[in-house]
Amino acid sequence: MPLLIDGKATAAQIKSEIAQEVATLVAEGRKRPHLAAVLVGNDGGSETYVKNKVLACEACGFESTLIRFEDTVSETELLAKIDELNRDENIDGFIVQLPLPRHIDTDKVIEAIDHRKDVDGFHPINVGRLAIGLPCFISATPLGILTLLRRYGIETAGKHCVVVGRSNIVGKPMVQLMLQKEHGNATVTCIHSYTQDVAAECRKADILIAAIGRPGYITADMVKPGATVIDVGTTRVPDNSRPSGFRLSGDVDFNTVAPIAGAITPVPGGVGPMTICMLMLNTLAAGKKTYYR
Amino acid sequence: MPLLIDGKATAAQIKSEIAQEVATLVAEGRKRPHLAAVLVGNDGGSETYVKNKVLACEACGFESTLIRFEDTVSETELLAKIDELNRDENIDGFIVQLPLPRHIDTDKVIEAIDHRKDVDGFHPINVGRLAIGLPCFISATPLGILTLLRRYGIETAGKHCVVVGRSNIVGKPMVQLMLQKEHGNATVTCIHSYTQDVAAECRKADILIAAIGRPGYITADMVKPGATVIDVGTTRVPDNSRPSGFRLSGDVDFNTVAPIAGAITPVPGGVGPMTICMLMLNTLAAGKKTYYR
Repeated sequence: MPLLIDGKATAAQIKSEIAQEVATLVAEGRKRPHLAAVLVGNDGGSETYVKNKVLACEACGFESTLIRFEDTVSETELLAKIDELNRDENIDGFIVQLPLPRHIDTDKVIEAIDHRKDVDGFHPINVGRLAIGLPCFISATPLGILTLLRRYGIETAGKHCVVVGRSNIVGKPMVQLMLQKEHGNATVTCIHSYTQDVAAECRKADILIAAIGRPGYITADMVKPGATVIDVGTTRVPDNSRPSGFRLSGDVDFNTVAPIAGAITPVPGGVGPMTICMLMLNTLAAGKKTYYR
Repeated sequence: MPLLIDGKATAAQIKSEIAQEVATLVAEGRKRPHLAAVLVGNDGGSETYVKNKVLACEACGFESTLIRFEDTVSETELLAKIDELNRDENIDGFIVQLPLPRHIDTDKVIEAIDHRKDVDGFHPINVGRLAIGLPCFISATPLGILTLLRRYGIETAGKHCVVVGRSNIVGKPMVQLMLQKEHGNATVTCIHSYTQDVAAECRKADILIAAIGRPGYITADMVKPGATVIDVGTTRVPDNSRPSGFRLSGDVDFNTVAPIAGAITPVPGGVGPMTICMLMLNTLAAGKKTYYR
Protein backbone atom coordinates (compact mmCIF):
# COMPACT_ATOMS: atom_id res chain seq x y z
CA MET A 1 0.00 0.00 0.00
CA PRO A 2 1.14 3.56 -0.65
CA LEU A 3 2.33 6.21 1.74
CA LEU A 4 -0.81 7.83 3.13
CA ILE A 5 -0.33 11.61 3.24
CA ASP A 6 -2.05 12.73 6.41
CA GLY A 7 -3.18 16.31 5.91
CA LYS A 8 -5.06 16.38 9.17
CA ALA A 9 -1.99 15.54 11.23
CA THR A 10 0.27 17.86 9.22
CA ALA A 11 -2.20 20.71 9.57
CA ALA A 12 -2.45 20.12 13.32
CA GLN A 13 1.34 20.21 13.57
CA ILE A 14 1.59 23.46 11.60
CA LYS A 15 -1.20 25.05 13.61
CA SER A 16 0.64 24.24 16.81
CA GLU A 17 3.79 25.82 15.33
CA ILE A 18 1.73 28.92 14.49
CA ALA A 19 0.25 29.01 17.99
CA GLN A 20 3.76 28.93 19.47
CA GLU A 21 4.83 31.81 17.28
CA VAL A 22 1.74 33.80 18.23
CA ALA A 23 2.46 33.18 21.91
CA THR A 24 5.94 34.60 21.35
CA LEU A 25 4.55 37.62 19.49
CA VAL A 26 2.08 38.31 22.29
CA ALA A 27 4.79 37.87 24.94
CA GLU A 28 6.76 40.54 23.08
CA GLY A 29 3.80 42.88 23.44
CA ARG A 30 2.62 42.63 19.85
CA LYS A 31 -1.01 42.09 18.89
CA ARG A 32 -2.56 38.77 17.97
CA PRO A 33 -3.20 38.32 14.23
CA HIS A 34 -6.85 39.04 13.50
CA LEU A 35 -8.79 37.38 10.67
CA ALA A 36 -12.26 38.48 9.61
CA ALA A 37 -14.51 36.26 7.52
CA VAL A 38 -17.49 37.55 5.56
CA LEU A 39 -20.22 35.00 4.98
CA VAL A 40 -23.16 35.75 2.69
CA GLY A 41 -26.23 33.52 2.91
CA ASN A 42 -26.60 30.06 4.42
CA ASP A 43 -24.99 27.59 2.00
CA GLY A 44 -24.22 24.42 3.96
CA GLY A 45 -20.70 23.98 2.61
CA SER A 46 -19.80 27.63 3.18
CA GLU A 47 -21.17 27.50 6.74
CA THR A 48 -18.93 24.52 7.48
CA TYR A 49 -15.83 26.09 5.91
CA VAL A 50 -16.28 29.35 7.80
CA LYS A 51 -16.98 27.54 11.07
CA ASN A 52 -13.77 25.54 10.61
CA LYS A 53 -11.83 28.71 9.84
CA VAL A 54 -13.03 30.31 13.06
CA LEU A 55 -12.07 27.16 15.00
CA ALA A 56 -8.63 27.16 13.35
CA CYS A 57 -8.16 30.80 14.41
CA GLU A 58 -8.81 29.75 18.01
CA ALA A 59 -6.31 26.90 17.71
CA CYS A 60 -3.69 29.32 16.43
CA GLY A 61 -4.33 31.97 19.05
CA PHE A 62 -5.72 34.46 16.51
CA GLU A 63 -8.57 36.83 17.01
CA SER A 64 -11.40 36.22 14.58
CA THR A 65 -14.51 38.08 13.55
CA LEU A 66 -17.40 36.59 11.62
CA ILE A 67 -19.53 38.99 9.61
CA ARG A 68 -22.80 37.63 8.28
CA PHE A 69 -25.08 38.94 5.57
CA GLU A 70 -28.38 37.59 4.27
CA ASP A 71 -28.13 36.36 0.68
CA THR A 72 -30.28 39.36 -0.27
CA VAL A 73 -27.46 41.78 0.63
CA SER A 74 -26.77 44.29 -2.12
CA GLU A 75 -23.39 44.49 -3.85
CA THR A 76 -23.08 48.08 -2.64
CA GLU A 77 -23.61 47.05 0.96
CA LEU A 78 -21.06 44.25 0.67
CA LEU A 79 -18.50 46.57 -0.98
CA ALA A 80 -19.04 49.11 1.82
CA LYS A 81 -18.20 46.43 4.39
CA ILE A 82 -15.05 45.49 2.45
CA ASP A 83 -14.02 49.13 2.39
CA GLU A 84 -14.53 49.26 6.16
CA LEU A 85 -12.42 46.12 6.67
CA ASN A 86 -9.70 47.52 4.41
CA ARG A 87 -9.48 50.60 6.66
CA ASP A 88 -9.83 48.82 10.00
CA GLU A 89 -6.33 48.70 11.48
CA ASN A 90 -7.41 46.04 13.92
CA ILE A 91 -8.07 43.56 11.09
CA ASP A 92 -4.87 42.05 9.60
CA GLY A 93 -6.52 39.98 6.90
CA PHE A 94 -9.98 38.99 5.76
CA ILE A 95 -11.77 36.69 3.39
CA VAL A 96 -15.11 36.78 1.64
CA GLN A 97 -16.35 33.20 1.52
CA LEU A 98 -17.17 32.08 -2.02
CA PRO A 99 -19.43 31.36 -3.84
CA LEU A 100 -21.45 34.57 -3.66
CA PRO A 101 -25.09 34.95 -4.76
CA ARG A 102 -25.53 35.50 -8.49
CA HIS A 103 -26.56 39.15 -8.20
CA ILE A 104 -23.12 40.02 -6.81
CA ASP A 105 -20.09 40.42 -9.12
CA THR A 106 -17.45 38.14 -7.55
CA ASP A 107 -14.55 39.66 -9.50
CA LYS A 108 -15.54 43.13 -8.33
CA VAL A 109 -15.67 41.95 -4.73
CA ILE A 110 -12.24 40.29 -4.94
CA GLU A 111 -10.70 43.37 -6.55
CA ALA A 112 -12.18 45.59 -3.83
CA ILE A 113 -10.17 43.78 -1.13
CA ASP A 114 -6.93 45.55 -0.23
CA HIS A 115 -4.31 43.13 -1.58
CA ARG A 116 -2.31 43.60 1.62
CA LYS A 117 -5.20 42.00 3.55
CA ASP A 118 -6.11 39.44 0.85
CA VAL A 119 -5.13 36.32 2.79
CA ASP A 120 -6.99 34.13 0.29
CA GLY A 121 -4.52 35.29 -2.38
CA PHE A 122 -7.30 35.82 -4.93
CA HIS A 123 -6.65 39.51 -5.74
CA PRO A 124 -5.04 40.10 -9.16
CA ILE A 125 -2.00 41.69 -7.52
CA ASN A 126 -1.33 38.55 -5.47
CA VAL A 127 -2.06 36.28 -8.44
CA GLY A 128 0.28 38.34 -10.62
CA ARG A 129 3.05 38.50 -8.03
CA LEU A 130 2.92 34.71 -7.65
CA ALA A 131 3.30 34.37 -11.42
CA ILE A 132 6.24 36.76 -11.55
CA GLY A 133 7.91 35.15 -8.54
CA LEU A 134 7.48 38.03 -6.06
CA PRO A 135 6.54 37.55 -2.39
CA CYS A 136 2.75 37.53 -1.92
CA PHE A 137 -0.21 35.76 -0.37
CA ILE A 138 -0.50 32.44 -2.20
CA SER A 139 -3.87 30.76 -2.69
CA ALA A 140 -4.31 28.40 0.26
CA THR A 141 -5.08 25.10 -1.48
CA PRO A 142 -2.06 25.12 -3.84
CA LEU A 143 0.16 26.28 -0.98
CA GLY A 144 -1.22 23.50 1.23
CA ILE A 145 -0.48 20.89 -1.42
CA LEU A 146 3.11 22.07 -1.93
CA THR A 147 3.57 22.12 1.86
CA LEU A 148 2.34 18.53 2.14
CA LEU A 149 4.76 17.41 -0.57
CA ARG A 150 7.61 19.22 1.21
CA ARG A 151 6.81 17.85 4.66
CA TYR A 152 6.57 14.31 3.28
CA GLY A 153 9.88 14.67 1.47
CA ILE A 154 8.37 14.19 -1.99
CA GLU A 155 10.70 15.69 -4.59
CA THR A 156 9.11 18.12 -7.02
CA ALA A 157 12.11 19.65 -8.87
CA GLY A 158 12.27 18.29 -12.40
CA LYS A 159 9.35 15.93 -11.79
CA HIS A 160 6.39 15.91 -14.13
CA CYS A 161 3.39 17.37 -12.35
CA VAL A 162 -0.01 17.10 -14.02
CA VAL A 163 -2.72 19.42 -12.72
CA VAL A 164 -6.25 18.34 -13.63
CA GLY A 165 -8.51 21.40 -13.66
CA ARG A 166 -7.95 25.09 -14.35
CA SER A 167 -10.02 26.95 -11.77
CA ASN A 168 -8.82 30.35 -10.59
CA ILE A 169 -8.56 29.22 -6.97
CA VAL A 170 -6.84 25.84 -7.38
CA GLY A 171 -5.77 24.68 -10.84
CA LYS A 172 -4.23 27.83 -12.27
CA PRO A 173 -2.33 28.97 -9.15
CA MET A 174 -1.20 25.35 -8.67
CA VAL A 175 0.36 25.45 -12.14
CA GLN A 176 2.15 28.70 -11.27
CA LEU A 177 3.38 27.44 -7.92
CA MET A 178 4.72 24.13 -9.25
CA LEU A 179 6.43 25.95 -12.11
CA GLN A 180 8.29 28.57 -10.05
CA LYS A 181 11.98 28.05 -9.52
CA GLU A 182 11.54 29.19 -5.90
CA HIS A 183 8.74 26.68 -5.30
CA GLY A 184 7.90 23.45 -7.13
CA ASN A 185 10.42 23.79 -9.97
CA ALA A 186 8.54 20.99 -11.75
CA THR A 187 7.68 20.31 -15.37
CA VAL A 188 3.97 21.15 -15.33
CA THR A 189 1.07 20.10 -17.53
CA CYS A 190 -2.43 21.47 -17.03
CA ILE A 191 -5.32 19.46 -18.44
CA HIS A 192 -9.01 20.31 -18.47
CA SER A 193 -12.35 19.73 -20.15
CA TYR A 194 -10.91 20.33 -23.64
CA THR A 195 -7.97 17.93 -23.26
CA GLN A 196 -8.19 15.12 -25.78
CA ASP A 197 -6.67 12.06 -24.09
CA VAL A 198 -7.00 12.76 -20.39
CA ALA A 199 -5.95 9.28 -19.28
CA ALA A 200 -2.75 9.35 -21.35
CA GLU A 201 -1.83 12.80 -20.02
CA CYS A 202 -2.49 11.73 -16.41
CA ARG A 203 -0.36 8.61 -16.80
CA LYS A 204 2.68 10.81 -17.47
CA ALA A 205 2.47 12.34 -14.01
CA ASP A 206 5.00 11.74 -11.27
CA ILE A 207 2.70 13.98 -9.23
CA LEU A 208 -0.97 14.01 -10.17
CA ILE A 209 -3.15 16.75 -8.69
CA ALA A 210 -6.89 16.36 -9.26
CA ALA A 211 -9.03 19.48 -8.77
CA ILE A 212 -12.16 19.19 -10.88
CA GLY A 213 -14.92 18.35 -8.42
CA ARG A 214 -16.02 15.12 -10.11
CA PRO A 215 -16.28 12.27 -7.60
CA GLY A 216 -14.10 9.26 -8.43
CA TYR A 217 -13.01 10.71 -11.80
CA ILE A 218 -9.38 9.57 -11.54
CA THR A 219 -9.27 5.79 -11.89
CA ALA A 220 -6.36 3.34 -11.63
CA ASP A 221 -5.78 3.21 -15.40
CA MET A 222 -5.00 6.95 -15.34
CA VAL A 223 -2.20 6.69 -12.79
CA LYS A 224 1.44 5.74 -13.33
CA PRO A 225 2.51 3.10 -10.77
CA GLY A 226 4.36 4.76 -7.94
CA ALA A 227 2.99 8.26 -8.66
CA THR A 228 2.03 10.69 -5.92
CA VAL A 229 -1.71 11.38 -6.12
CA ILE A 230 -3.18 14.51 -4.56
CA ASP A 231 -6.96 14.73 -4.33
CA VAL A 232 -8.45 18.22 -4.02
CA GLY A 233 -12.06 17.14 -4.61
CA THR A 234 -14.59 17.50 -1.79
CA THR A 235 -17.96 16.94 -3.38
CA ARG A 236 -20.93 16.26 -1.10
CA VAL A 237 -22.48 12.96 -2.17
CA PRO A 238 -25.85 11.91 -0.67
CA ASP A 239 -25.36 9.11 1.88
CA ASN A 240 -28.30 8.06 4.03
CA SER A 241 -26.06 6.03 6.34
CA ARG A 242 -24.55 9.28 7.69
CA PRO A 243 -26.27 11.52 10.25
CA SER A 244 -25.52 14.51 7.98
CA GLY A 245 -27.12 12.76 5.00
CA PHE A 246 -23.97 13.08 2.88
CA ARG A 247 -20.33 12.12 2.68
CA LEU A 248 -17.40 13.95 1.11
CA SER A 249 -16.11 12.36 -2.07
CA GLY A 250 -12.77 13.12 -3.68
CA ASP A 251 -11.92 13.31 -7.40
CA VAL A 252 -9.85 10.13 -7.04
CA ASP A 253 -11.30 6.62 -6.92
CA PHE A 254 -9.26 5.92 -3.78
CA ASN A 255 -9.90 2.19 -3.50
CA THR A 256 -8.56 1.32 -6.96
CA VAL A 257 -5.88 4.04 -7.18
CA ALA A 258 -4.30 3.61 -3.72
CA PRO A 259 -2.85 0.14 -4.43
CA ILE A 260 -0.76 1.42 -7.36
CA ALA A 261 0.09 4.94 -6.10
CA GLY A 262 3.39 5.66 -4.36
CA ALA A 263 1.72 8.19 -2.08
CA ILE A 264 -1.86 9.45 -1.85
CA THR A 265 -4.04 11.90 0.08
CA PRO A 266 -7.34 10.66 1.53
CA VAL A 267 -10.65 12.56 1.41
CA PRO A 268 -11.45 13.78 3.98
CA GLY A 269 -8.27 14.38 5.96
CA GLY A 270 -5.93 15.20 3.08
CA VAL A 271 -5.87 18.54 1.29
CA GLY A 272 -8.92 20.01 3.08
CA PRO A 273 -7.34 20.60 6.50
CA MET A 274 -4.21 21.98 4.82
CA THR A 275 -6.24 24.62 2.98
CA ILE A 276 -7.55 26.09 6.21
CA CYS A 277 -4.13 25.75 7.81
CA MET A 278 -2.50 27.76 4.99
CA LEU A 279 -5.12 30.47 5.45
CA MET A 280 -3.86 30.65 9.03
CA LEU A 281 -0.26 30.87 7.81
CA ASN A 282 -1.25 33.71 5.47
CA THR A 283 -3.04 35.46 8.33
CA LEU A 284 0.08 35.15 10.49
CA ALA A 285 2.10 36.66 7.63
CA ALA A 286 -0.46 39.47 7.35
CA GLY A 287 -0.18 40.16 11.08
CA LYS A 288 3.62 40.20 10.85
CA LYS A 289 3.49 42.24 7.62
CA THR A 290 5.79 39.70 6.01
CA TYR A 291 4.87 40.54 2.41
CA TYR A 292 3.46 44.06 2.59
CA ARG A 293 3.91 46.97 5.01
CA MET B 1 7.87 21.75 -46.91
CA PRO B 2 5.77 23.19 -44.11
CA LEU B 3 3.51 26.20 -44.06
CA LEU B 4 5.77 29.19 -43.47
CA ILE B 5 4.14 31.50 -40.93
CA ASP B 6 4.98 35.00 -42.11
CA GLY B 7 5.02 37.26 -39.05
CA LYS B 8 6.32 40.20 -41.03
CA ALA B 9 3.40 40.16 -43.48
CA THR B 10 0.85 39.52 -40.73
CA ALA B 11 2.23 42.35 -38.62
CA ALA B 12 2.15 44.70 -41.63
CA GLN B 13 -1.48 43.75 -42.26
CA ILE B 14 -2.46 44.35 -38.61
CA LYS B 15 -0.59 47.66 -38.51
CA SER B 16 -2.50 48.83 -41.56
CA GLU B 17 -5.76 47.81 -39.84
CA ILE B 18 -4.67 49.84 -36.80
CA ALA B 19 -3.76 52.83 -38.98
CA GLN B 20 -7.22 52.72 -40.53
CA GLU B 21 -8.83 52.68 -37.10
CA VAL B 22 -6.66 55.58 -35.95
CA ALA B 23 -7.64 57.55 -39.06
CA THR B 24 -11.28 56.99 -38.13
CA LEU B 25 -10.66 58.06 -34.53
CA VAL B 26 -8.92 61.23 -35.66
CA ALA B 27 -11.69 61.96 -38.18
CA GLU B 28 -14.12 61.75 -35.26
CA GLY B 29 -12.10 64.42 -33.46
CA ARG B 30 -10.44 62.07 -30.97
CA LYS B 31 -6.73 62.18 -30.20
CA ARG B 32 -4.10 59.90 -31.69
CA PRO B 33 -2.87 57.16 -29.31
CA HIS B 34 0.43 58.23 -27.82
CA LEU B 35 3.15 55.77 -26.76
CA ALA B 36 6.20 56.79 -24.77
CA ALA B 37 9.29 54.59 -24.57
CA VAL B 38 11.95 54.96 -21.91
CA LEU B 39 15.40 53.77 -22.94
CA VAL B 40 18.22 53.51 -20.43
CA GLY B 41 21.79 53.20 -21.73
CA ASN B 42 23.00 52.18 -25.18
CA ASP B 43 22.56 48.40 -25.45
CA GLY B 44 22.54 47.55 -29.16
CA GLY B 45 19.54 45.22 -28.99
CA SER B 46 17.50 47.68 -26.93
CA GLU B 47 18.36 50.53 -29.33
CA THR B 48 17.07 48.46 -32.25
CA TYR B 49 13.90 47.40 -30.46
CA VAL B 50 13.04 50.94 -29.41
CA LYS B 51 13.83 52.33 -32.87
CA ASN B 52 11.50 49.73 -34.39
CA LYS B 53 8.79 50.59 -31.88
CA VAL B 54 9.00 54.27 -32.82
CA LEU B 55 8.80 53.34 -36.54
CA ALA B 56 5.80 51.11 -35.85
CA CYS B 57 4.09 54.03 -34.10
CA GLU B 58 4.54 56.10 -37.24
CA ALA B 59 3.13 53.32 -39.39
CA CYS B 60 0.07 53.13 -37.14
CA GLY B 61 -0.49 56.88 -37.00
CA PHE B 62 0.36 57.10 -33.30
CA GLU B 63 2.26 59.85 -31.59
CA SER B 64 5.43 58.61 -29.95
CA THR B 65 7.92 60.02 -27.49
CA LEU B 66 11.36 58.59 -26.80
CA ILE B 67 12.90 59.36 -23.43
CA ARG B 68 16.59 58.57 -23.04
CA PHE B 69 18.68 58.18 -19.92
CA GLU B 70 22.36 57.41 -19.52
CA ASP B 71 23.00 54.02 -17.92
CA THR B 72 24.21 55.90 -14.86
CA VAL B 73 20.69 57.20 -14.16
CA SER B 74 19.63 56.66 -10.56
CA GLU B 75 16.62 54.53 -9.67
CA THR B 76 15.04 57.57 -8.01
CA GLU B 77 15.38 59.62 -11.17
CA LEU B 78 13.89 56.85 -13.29
CA LEU B 79 10.99 56.38 -10.85
CA ALA B 80 10.33 60.13 -10.93
CA LYS B 81 10.03 59.99 -14.72
CA ILE B 82 7.63 57.05 -14.45
CA ASP B 83 5.54 59.01 -12.00
CA GLU B 84 5.48 61.91 -14.44
CA LEU B 85 4.40 59.63 -17.31
CA ASN B 86 1.70 58.09 -15.10
CA ARG B 87 0.23 61.56 -14.54
CA ASP B 88 0.67 62.89 -18.07
CA GLU B 89 -2.78 62.79 -19.65
CA ASN B 90 -1.26 63.16 -23.08
CA ILE B 91 0.50 59.77 -22.78
CA ASP B 92 -1.84 56.80 -23.23
CA GLY B 93 0.70 54.07 -22.61
CA PHE B 94 4.40 53.70 -22.05
CA ILE B 95 7.12 51.11 -21.77
CA VAL B 96 10.47 50.96 -20.05
CA GLN B 97 12.76 48.97 -22.34
CA LEU B 98 14.37 45.99 -20.55
CA PRO B 99 16.95 44.96 -19.48
CA LEU B 100 17.84 47.77 -17.06
CA PRO B 101 21.29 48.34 -15.55
CA ARG B 102 22.02 46.18 -12.51
CA HIS B 103 21.81 49.01 -9.99
CA ILE B 104 18.12 49.50 -10.80
CA ASP B 105 15.45 47.20 -9.32
CA THR B 106 13.48 46.04 -12.38
CA ASP B 107 10.53 44.73 -10.33
CA LYS B 108 10.22 48.08 -8.57
CA VAL B 109 10.25 49.92 -11.89
CA ILE B 110 7.55 47.64 -13.36
CA GLU B 111 5.37 47.99 -10.29
CA ALA B 112 5.71 51.79 -10.42
CA ILE B 113 4.02 51.93 -13.84
CA ASP B 114 0.31 52.70 -13.64
CA HIS B 115 -1.23 49.40 -14.76
CA ARG B 116 -3.68 51.35 -16.93
CA LYS B 117 -0.73 52.57 -19.02
CA ASP B 118 1.28 49.32 -18.83
CA VAL B 119 1.07 48.40 -22.51
CA ASP B 120 3.83 45.80 -22.06
CA GLY B 121 1.49 43.91 -19.71
CA PHE B 122 4.29 43.29 -17.20
CA HIS B 123 2.66 44.88 -14.13
CA PRO B 124 1.40 42.33 -11.54
CA ILE B 125 -2.18 43.58 -11.96
CA ASN B 126 -2.12 42.81 -15.70
CA VAL B 127 -0.32 39.49 -15.14
CA GLY B 128 -2.88 38.55 -12.47
CA ARG B 129 -5.87 39.63 -14.53
CA LEU B 130 -4.64 37.52 -17.45
CA ALA B 131 -4.37 34.51 -15.13
CA ILE B 132 -7.87 35.04 -13.74
CA GLY B 133 -9.35 35.62 -17.18
CA LEU B 134 -10.17 39.34 -16.83
CA PRO B 135 -9.62 41.92 -19.60
CA CYS B 136 -6.11 43.40 -19.44
CA PHE B 137 -2.98 44.29 -21.37
CA ILE B 138 -1.44 40.98 -22.40
CA SER B 139 2.32 40.60 -22.79
CA ALA B 140 3.08 41.32 -26.45
CA THR B 141 5.07 38.23 -27.47
CA PRO B 142 2.54 35.64 -26.22
CA LEU B 143 -0.30 37.70 -27.69
CA GLY B 144 1.57 37.92 -31.00
CA ILE B 145 2.03 34.16 -31.10
CA LEU B 146 -1.63 33.46 -30.39
CA THR B 147 -2.60 36.01 -33.05
CA LEU B 148 -0.35 34.31 -35.62
CA LEU B 149 -1.94 30.94 -34.85
CA ARG B 150 -5.42 32.46 -35.19
CA ARG B 151 -4.69 34.28 -38.45
CA TYR B 152 -3.19 31.13 -39.96
CA GLY B 153 -6.19 29.06 -38.88
CA ILE B 154 -4.14 26.76 -36.62
CA GLU B 155 -6.46 25.16 -34.09
CA THR B 156 -5.39 25.48 -30.45
CA ALA B 157 -8.43 24.23 -28.49
CA GLY B 158 -7.70 20.81 -27.02
CA LYS B 159 -4.31 20.64 -28.72
CA HIS B 160 -1.19 19.89 -26.71
CA CYS B 161 0.94 23.01 -26.52
CA VAL B 162 4.45 22.71 -25.09
CA VAL B 163 6.10 25.95 -24.00
CA VAL B 164 9.88 25.71 -23.66
CA GLY B 165 11.06 28.33 -21.15
CA ARG B 166 9.48 30.03 -18.15
CA SER B 167 10.51 33.67 -18.35
CA ASN B 168 8.17 36.29 -16.92
CA ILE B 169 7.79 38.04 -20.26
CA VAL B 170 7.28 35.07 -22.60
CA GLY B 171 7.10 31.55 -21.14
CA LYS B 172 4.86 32.07 -18.15
CA PRO B 173 2.31 34.43 -19.77
CA MET B 174 2.31 32.12 -22.82
CA VAL B 175 1.25 29.24 -20.54
CA GLN B 176 -1.55 31.37 -19.09
CA LEU B 177 -2.75 32.55 -22.47
CA MET B 178 -2.81 29.10 -24.07
CA LEU B 179 -4.61 27.70 -21.03
CA GLN B 180 -7.44 30.24 -20.85
CA LYS B 181 -10.83 29.15 -22.06
CA GLU B 182 -11.25 32.57 -23.73
CA HIS B 183 -7.91 32.26 -25.54
CA GLY B 184 -5.88 29.16 -26.45
CA ASN B 185 -7.99 26.60 -24.57
CA ALA B 186 -5.11 24.14 -25.06
CA THR B 187 -3.61 21.42 -22.91
CA VAL B 188 -0.39 23.14 -21.85
CA THR B 189 2.97 21.81 -20.67
CA CYS B 190 5.77 24.12 -19.59
CA ILE B 191 9.30 22.75 -19.63
CA HIS B 192 12.52 24.41 -18.52
CA SER B 193 16.06 23.89 -17.31
CA TYR B 194 15.00 21.35 -14.66
CA THR B 195 12.93 19.19 -17.02
CA GLN B 196 14.33 15.69 -17.22
CA ASP B 197 13.60 14.46 -20.75
CA VAL B 198 13.21 17.62 -22.79
CA ALA B 199 13.16 15.85 -26.17
CA ALA B 200 10.38 13.46 -25.10
CA GLU B 201 8.28 16.31 -23.72
CA CYS B 202 8.76 18.37 -26.89
CA ARG B 203 7.77 15.46 -29.11
CA LYS B 204 4.31 15.44 -27.50
CA ALA B 205 3.59 18.93 -28.78
CA ASP B 206 1.02 19.71 -31.45
CA ILE B 207 2.20 23.28 -31.00
CA LEU B 208 5.79 23.76 -29.83
CA ILE B 209 6.80 27.22 -28.62
CA ALA B 210 10.52 27.73 -28.00
CA ALA B 211 11.50 30.72 -25.85
CA ILE B 212 14.81 30.02 -24.16
CA GLY B 213 17.34 32.07 -26.10
CA ARG B 214 19.62 29.16 -27.08
CA PRO B 215 20.39 29.21 -30.80
CA GLY B 216 19.37 26.03 -32.63
CA TYR B 217 18.37 24.23 -29.41
CA ILE B 218 15.26 22.57 -30.89
CA THR B 219 16.37 19.89 -33.32
CA ALA B 220 14.35 17.61 -35.62
CA ASP B 221 14.36 14.68 -33.17
CA MET B 222 12.46 16.88 -30.67
CA VAL B 223 9.55 17.64 -33.01
CA LYS B 224 6.49 15.54 -33.79
CA PRO B 225 5.98 15.33 -37.57
CA GLY B 226 3.33 17.82 -38.60
CA ALA B 227 3.62 19.95 -35.47
CA THR B 228 3.41 23.74 -35.52
CA VAL B 229 6.75 25.17 -34.40
CA ILE B 230 6.97 28.73 -33.07
CA ASP B 231 10.43 30.21 -32.58
CA VAL B 232 10.71 33.10 -30.11
CA GLY B 233 14.52 33.12 -29.99
CA THR B 234 16.40 36.12 -31.34
CA THR B 235 19.98 35.67 -30.19
CA ARG B 236 22.66 37.77 -31.87
CA VAL B 237 25.26 35.40 -33.24
CA PRO B 238 28.57 36.84 -34.56
CA ASP B 239 28.63 36.73 -38.36
CA ASN B 240 31.42 38.48 -40.22
CA SER B 241 29.64 38.14 -43.55
CA ARG B 242 27.02 40.67 -42.39
CA PRO B 243 27.58 44.45 -42.34
CA SER B 244 26.27 44.51 -38.76
CA GLY B 245 28.74 41.80 -37.74
CA PHE B 246 25.97 39.51 -36.46
CA ARG B 247 22.86 37.64 -37.50
CA LEU B 248 19.74 36.77 -35.48
CA SER B 249 19.47 33.12 -34.59
CA GLY B 250 16.30 31.43 -33.38
CA ASP B 251 15.95 28.66 -30.78
CA VAL B 252 14.93 26.24 -33.54
CA ASP B 253 17.35 24.55 -35.93
CA PHE B 254 15.23 25.68 -38.89
CA ASN B 255 16.94 23.70 -41.63
CA THR B 256 16.42 20.30 -40.02
CA VAL B 257 13.09 21.05 -38.30
CA ALA B 258 11.27 22.73 -41.20
CA PRO B 259 11.07 19.57 -43.36
CA ILE B 260 9.10 17.68 -40.71
CA ALA B 261 7.04 20.53 -39.20
CA GLY B 262 3.50 21.21 -40.34
CA ALA B 263 3.98 24.95 -39.91
CA ILE B 264 6.92 27.02 -38.70
CA THR B 265 7.96 30.61 -38.03
CA PRO B 266 11.26 31.88 -39.47
CA VAL B 267 13.80 34.01 -37.61
CA PRO B 268 13.86 36.85 -38.43
CA GLY B 269 10.39 37.66 -39.78
CA GLY B 270 8.33 35.41 -37.52
CA VAL B 271 7.47 36.24 -33.93
CA GLY B 272 9.63 39.39 -33.70
CA PRO B 273 7.52 41.70 -35.89
CA MET B 274 4.37 40.42 -34.17
CA THR B 275 5.70 41.43 -30.74
CA ILE B 276 6.06 45.06 -31.78
CA CYS B 277 2.73 44.90 -33.59
CA MET B 278 0.95 43.68 -30.43
CA LEU B 279 2.52 46.55 -28.50
CA MET B 280 0.81 48.80 -31.03
CA LEU B 281 -2.50 46.97 -30.51
CA ASN B 282 -2.13 47.44 -26.74
CA THR B 283 -1.37 51.12 -27.25
CA LEU B 284 -4.49 51.48 -29.39
CA ALA B 285 -6.48 49.80 -26.61
CA ALA B 286 -4.90 52.19 -24.09
CA GLY B 287 -5.88 55.18 -26.24
CA LYS B 288 -9.43 53.86 -26.56
CA LYS B 289 -9.52 52.93 -22.87
CA THR B 290 -10.68 49.45 -23.83
CA TYR B 291 -9.60 47.73 -20.59
CA TYR B 292 -9.39 50.52 -18.06
CA ARG B 293 -11.05 53.94 -17.73
